[in-house]
Amino acid sequence: MEGTANADGRLKYQRGNNLLVFWSKSKMNRALSIRSGKKDGSSSSSGPPARHGFSLMSLRGNLQPELSKKLYKLIKSENHLIQAHEAAARERLSIGAQLSEWGEATGDDAISDISDKVGVILAEIGEQEDLYAHNIDDSRGILKAIRNTEKSVQPSRDSKAKIADEIAKLKYKEPESTKLVTLEQELVRAEAENLVAEAQLTNITRQKIKEAYAAEFAATIERAEKQILLARHGRRLLNLIDDTPVVPGDVRAPFGHGSQARQVMNDAEDDLKDWRLELDDLPSLDNTMPNLTTQRQKGGDHSILGGDTEAEHHTSVVQGAGSMADGSRISSGTSAGAAGQHYASSEAPASVLA
Amino acid sequence: MEGTANADGRLKYQRGNNLLVFWSKSKMNRALSIRSGKKDGSSSSSGPPARHGFSLMSLRGNLQPELSKKLYKLIKSENHLIQAHEAAARERLSIGAQLSEWGEATGDDAISDISDKVGVILAEIGEQEDLYAHNIDDSRGILKAIRNTEKSVQPSRDSKAKIADEIAKLKYKEPESTKLVTLEQELVRAEAENLVAEAQLTNITRQKIKEAYAAEFAATIERAEKQILLARHGRRLLNLIDDTPVVPGDVRAPFGHGSQARQVMNDAEDDLKDWRLELDDLPSLDNTMPNLTTQRQKGGDHSILGGDTEAEHHTSVVQGAGSMADGSRISSGTSAGAAGQHYASSEAPASVLA
Repeated sequence: MEGTANADGRLKYQRGNNLLVFWSKSKMNRALSIRSGKKDGSSSSSGPPARHGFSLMSLRGNLQPELSKKLYKLIKSENHLIQAHEAAARERLSIGAQLSEWGEATGDDAISDISDKVGVILAEIGEQEDLYAHNIDDSRGILKAIRNTEKSVQPSRDSKAKIADEIAKLKYKEPESTKLVTLEQELVRAEAENLVAEAQLTNITRQKIKEAYAAEFAATIERAEKQILLARHGRRLLNLIDDTPVVPGDVRAPFGHGSQARQVMNDAEDDLKDWRLELDDLPSLDNTMPNLTTQRQKGGDHSILGGDTEAEHHTSVVQGAGSMADGSRISSGTSAGAAGQHYASSEAPASVLA
Repeated sequence: MEGTANADGRLKYQRGNNLLVFWSKSKMNRALSIRSGKKDGSSSSSGPPARHGFSLMSLRGNLQPELSKKLYKLIKSENHLIQAHEAAARERLSIGAQLSEWGEATGDDAISDISDKVGVILAEIGEQEDLYAHNIDDSRGILKAIRNTEKSVQPSRDSKAKIADEIAKLKYKEPESTKLVTLEQELVRAEAENLVAEAQLTNITRQKIKEAYAAEFAATIERAEKQILLARHGRRLLNLIDDTPVVPGDVRAPFGHGSQARQVMNDAEDDLKDWRLELDDLPSLDNTMPNLTTQRQKGGDHSILGGDTEAEHHTSVVQGAGSMADGSRISSGTSAGAAGQHYASSEAPASVLA
């Protein structure tokens, strides 16, 4: 790819320190292709804790036909990713509770009230982290459909090759053998069977890979938008703590913002309730979302199914996009909904946008 | 808290399934207070993997003076949280590389190109997860300032109590003892010394708890907004895969969206570069951010320091807020910057908003 070099130069310059770290971990053309970053991939997968039971995994991996080995391992890694986010969710819940207990123990009424409510916000951030793990698990299930098809196509390829091989051998050894006719017939049948298998493979692969990662990206957006709401309200709570220093002997004025603190909590609840996921139409997503939501009894289904019902909010989003120079650019995700619709209609292939 | 019951009723009704799960894990008044959720906290902290070395930790915990024990453990939990997000980052990077390798192996040019670029997006999402872990670590460092002050205040309290105790005993045993005068003098000195220590404790506690969690919430917003950008562009890439089914024998048309795919990657780079963190002013944050950024060579400092430099984007945000009924409500975080300024000026105590 001749474009890589100068592209890298540009990107490096553009993205500053963040990118330099990015680079230091990977090959220069990582930003355009990750393949050269093999070391990167392997080193990071060699990292995970022992409890993953890698020995057992790689053992099973070897029982996989060649065709499905790579995806088999990727699905395993998705599982480790899910475990990591579940652990993060657990710790968040624990930290929320501990912060509240600590605040109570300080005997400072302001710290006690705010730390308790910030603890609740942190716990809900943990709940969203856990919901995210569940959603990745659903997307992981979609990948298995590809892996299973890969598995089932391998024998069809093998038998076809085997018959062709027999025919070649036989033609060399005894060209007049009547068995050749039978084998030729078998080959035609095997080729027909394989033709169907290969068509099934490409159809399943393209549809499901879209579904799986569209769902994973949607889950990423859901967690992000909800955690932004919670974090912003958490900062409102912290604003209610008067941290002007006192001199020895002074007594703090009693905490006077209890009602404001409760209001922040109510706002946080209401914002979470009103939250809607706004995405451009990704056709395969229509199949995915039911999976994503029915398997789980969480707010996810509300938000995911509730698409464009929130006119007021939608308006503000469109305004945001209107003020952007380039509709295909996404401005801090704030006006991404509208931007999404813009590029979807202008850039994606018509066939995909039925 | 008499307000709890009906508040719960309301919240339960408002927040639907998501909340029910939330409830099932905790006491009913968890939404207003997490304290009653002790079980919740302990059960979740009892969850984490063995590698945490809990035995050693709790041993150390016991060496802590009573005053700093709770915060000591909370800081430990923050460490486990950081490890979990680091693990998630590693797995993301690994998955990105594996997805690319798998796509190449399919021999399908469309899958090969898109899976490689989606792999890069996933890897960058992993980089942002890792940056998040670093930021939590910085916030964790701020908490240690409180813990250390708590540690240092304990002896001052103890010696004061000890002297008062001696005086009481002596007054009972030999009320005429001349030693009483000396002890009374010692007590006055001890009380003065303790008065200073307690003032230092409340000043440090209020300032640093605000700093620490304001920084952690800011980091949560940074990760969320950047991952939203990446996820939206990732979905653009998936849109370029034509997943209309083929019949056996058909050949797929060659992949015709290579340049669009490259454009998506460029847009993603540009959006990350242009990203700015927009927060309401939290005074103690001014002290925090330098810590947050100098200890780390990542894009964080750009975004955090670059506050309101992006006029155009800022405008769109304000427009968003303009269309909201209630400025203190945050609509999917999209217009939170403006909403933040609104509530900051209207709700937070003047003393905090100097």
